[in-house]
Amino acid sequence: MAVTSLSIEELKQLQQQLQQEYDAYKSQNLALDMSRGKPSGKQLDCMNSIFDIKVDYMTKAGVDARNYGILDGVPEVKELFSELLNIPTEQMIIGGNSSLNMMYDTIARCFLFGTGGETPWSKLPKVKFLCPCPGYDRHFAVTEEFGVEMINIPMTEQGPDMDLVEQLVAKDDSIKGIWCVPLFSNPQGICYSDEVVERLASMKTAAKDFRIMWDNAYGVHYVYKKHPLKDILKAAKDAGNEDRVFYFFSTSKITFPGAGVALMASSVKNIEETKKRMGVQTIGSDKLNQLRTLQFFKDADGVLRHMDQLAQELRPKFDIVLKTLERELKDTGLATWQSPDGGYFVSVDTYQGCAKKTVSLAKEAGVVMTGAGATYPYGNDPEDKNIRIAPSYPTCEELQKAMDLFCLCVKLAGVSQLLEENK
Amino acid sequence: MAVTSLSIEELKQLQQQLQQEYDAYKSQNLALDMSRGKPSGKQLDCMNSIFDIKVDYMTKAGVDARNYGILDGVPEVKELFSELLNIPTEQMIIGGNSSLNMMYDTIARCFLFGTGGETPWSKLPKVKFLCPCPGYDRHFAVTEEFGVEMINIPMTEQGPDMDLVEQLVAKDDSIKGIWCVPLFSNPQGICYSDEVVERLASMKTAAKDFRIMWDNAYGVHYVYKKHPLKDILKAAKDAGNEDRVFYFFSTSKITFPGAGVALMASSVKNIEETKKRMGVQTIGSDKLNQLRTLQFFKDADGVLRHMDQLAQELRPKFDIVLKTLERELKDTGLATWQSPDGGYFVSVDTYQGCAKKTVSLAKEAGVVMTGAGATYPYGNDPEDKNIRIAPSYPTCEELQKAMDLFCLCVKLAGVSQLLEENK
Repeated sequence: MAVTSLSIEELKQLQQQLQQEYDAYKSQNLALDMSRGKPSGKQLDCMNSIFDIKVDYMTKAGVDARNYGILDGVPEVKELFSELLNIPTEQMIIGGNSSLNMMYDTIARCFLFGTGGETPWSKLPKVKFLCPCPGYDRHFAVTEEFGVEMINIPMTEQGPDMDLVEQLVAKDDSIKGIWCVPLFSNPQGICYSDEVVERLASMKTAAKDFRIMWDNAYGVHYVYKKHPLKDILKAAKDAGNEDRVFYFFSTSKITFPGAGVALMASSVKNIEETKKRMGVQTIGSDKLNQLRTLQFFKDADGVLRHMDQLAQELRPKFDIVLKTLERELKDTGLATWQSPDGGYFVSVDTYQGCAKKTVSLAKEAGVVMTGAGATYPYGNDPEDKNIRIAPSYPTCEELQKAMDLFCLCVKLAGVSQLLEENK
Repeated sequence: MAVTSLSIEELKQLQQQLQQEYDAYKSQNLALDMSRGKPSGKQLDCMNSIFDIKVDYMTKAGVDARNYGILDGVPEVKELFSELLNIPTEQMIIGGNSSLNMMYDTIARCFLFGTGGETPWSKLPKVKFLCPCPGYDRHFAVTEEFGVEMINIPMTEQGPDMDLVEQLVAKDDSIKGIWCVPLFSNPQGICYSDEVVERLASMKTAAKDFRIMWDNAYGVHYVYKKHPLKDILKAAKDAGNEDRVFYFFSTSKITFPGAGVALMASSVKNIEETKKRMGVQTIGSDKLNQLRTLQFFKDADGVLRHMDQLAQELRPKFDIVLKTLERELKDTGLATWQSPDGGYFVSVDTYQGCAKKTVSLAKEAGVVMTGAGATYPYGNDPEDKNIRIAPSYPTCEELQKAMDLFCLCVKLAGVSQLLEENK
């Protein structure tokens, strides 16, 4: 029965009961963390034999990878990713260990030097970005750092609300870009439909230098089920907008978050322009780590087999999250959530105005969640209801405890809010 | 006897003789490279046992370095560099594999966000930098990229001409910085005297946000003799200018150029500001490579012992360069040069107006030198006489051949120029 249909008396009684349960948790002095999308130690152990690799440092072309040279990545490492992601090697740059760093630098270059021959964004009175949300806090932090005005775009089951996106970009040339996590989105686990990809690639934009920041962070990170993703680089090219897309990927959640290999891809023209600027910025990225990664996986199949192993590791954790939500919150009217097929998160919407309260209750009882609001630009969730659950890091036992407490907090916050509304 | 004192007839005769020698070289079809400061394969081999290290990935504090976290470097790796360079760990950030990248990003942050609370440099009508020269082409490329107006500062035996530096920075607040390679400078191998360091640290600058880009690239890279270097971070602090210095270092020419560890250091305030911005830009650098490097060297003494080995490797090459210059060019009046005690280069000044011609002659005969002019901002050597010799990469046998030809080209170009002048 929906909690939202209870009488005030019943709500008061329920509140008292939930409060007792909550106090009992508090006395347990829990110290659990579901805040960040961090792989667990056990997941990372699946990679440990990489430490046995004595890197063969001569590239196929006979270049000594210990030395200077090769700004944009070892060719055979590009080939590995080309096979994995279906991106031509000439449209790719291999970076260091952080795709976030490549995204930041890409936006920094747009601000400092411009892109596609247009005015540098730092010379414009106003730059705006579309931010499908809930979304990834670190994306929003980058655009906030550059003083970009961020516009919330609601997510649908198919991706960003494309009617709204098309309408906005068509008329406002200060809208210079959009953040996208097209597969198993952070935090909802939504996979962009072919139609959404197609519309993003082909829509008319008032800004000539409109850019799609395509962060395919979870491109091979299924948990229950693999999903296809339409090739946006090709779609954009077919639509005559080949310079529109900056594509990013990394092995942070494939190998090691602290020592992965990142890449970016775009049109040949954008990649050439980027390489020219990068040639001033850096001597290039760690080629030995690129080769180490290649020599561990051998080929794209090696990566996919490894992802099967990681999916097995993650599945019981997602099971716990989803089953506990189902058991504790289904039909209460106090929460809704998505059941993702992959990625790193489960996104929960509490009863309106209850996210901050829920996270704060959980924290007080020893369970750290991602901060309420973090999934929205400026940390401002207009309805104060979205909470991101990151189940990967804790053990199953810890996670079960944390989820039990979390659901209790959702209910306690929800009931208190209902009573507040009925005063 | 000085070639410059020969009669026209004698010069013509000499020219003919040199031309014959040169033509003989050309028929050898040489293919030698003295253009970049690249370690040789043999030098890199001294590091190869690092490939045997199975990285111990738990930090002393119990953090799993395989995972996310630790933005600014593993604490015990900071301690290694702190011991080596005498820099407090709290004034240090460990970066990726490229100190150039850290320099570029530091200047980019000054342009985008400003430093020390002053106006971002991108908002100023004009930004100027002092460029002691001959200097490092990649430094000049960075400031050129940002549209900085670069001002040549002559080098003395003690470092930059400080009378001129002090005079310029005192009156012009658009002068925002100076590039310095304080030990075994690139290309002359000059070591800054205590007085020069002291004056840089304490001089009055019209710009509040004047910054010294202190690239201590060759801080432990002696070849013949170690040199002390006055502690500029401390000197600046003592003078009340502690935010003035951005200090850079890397292991690119200690471990592997393709997979080293870079660092920057500055005042605590600057480091805190930088970390705040870096936290938006990146997840942090490769911590496993930091630990791998530490576990190879164990401590600062381990680094210094390794540098002894590299000095032994480099010494015969510097011997060849210096002896050949001495034998072929001494007292000819056609060239002057420095005898460095360390670093990676020997700097030669040809007869005026002969650098381009010399490099072009060498190239035509199969020996690639650093481009003439590269050691000056905008690639413009006003007297067209400086050439940088990079002896590290070729074998001794190749180097001897290349130097013989080089000296011949210096003479041929010089004699032709003398004849031109006497027309």
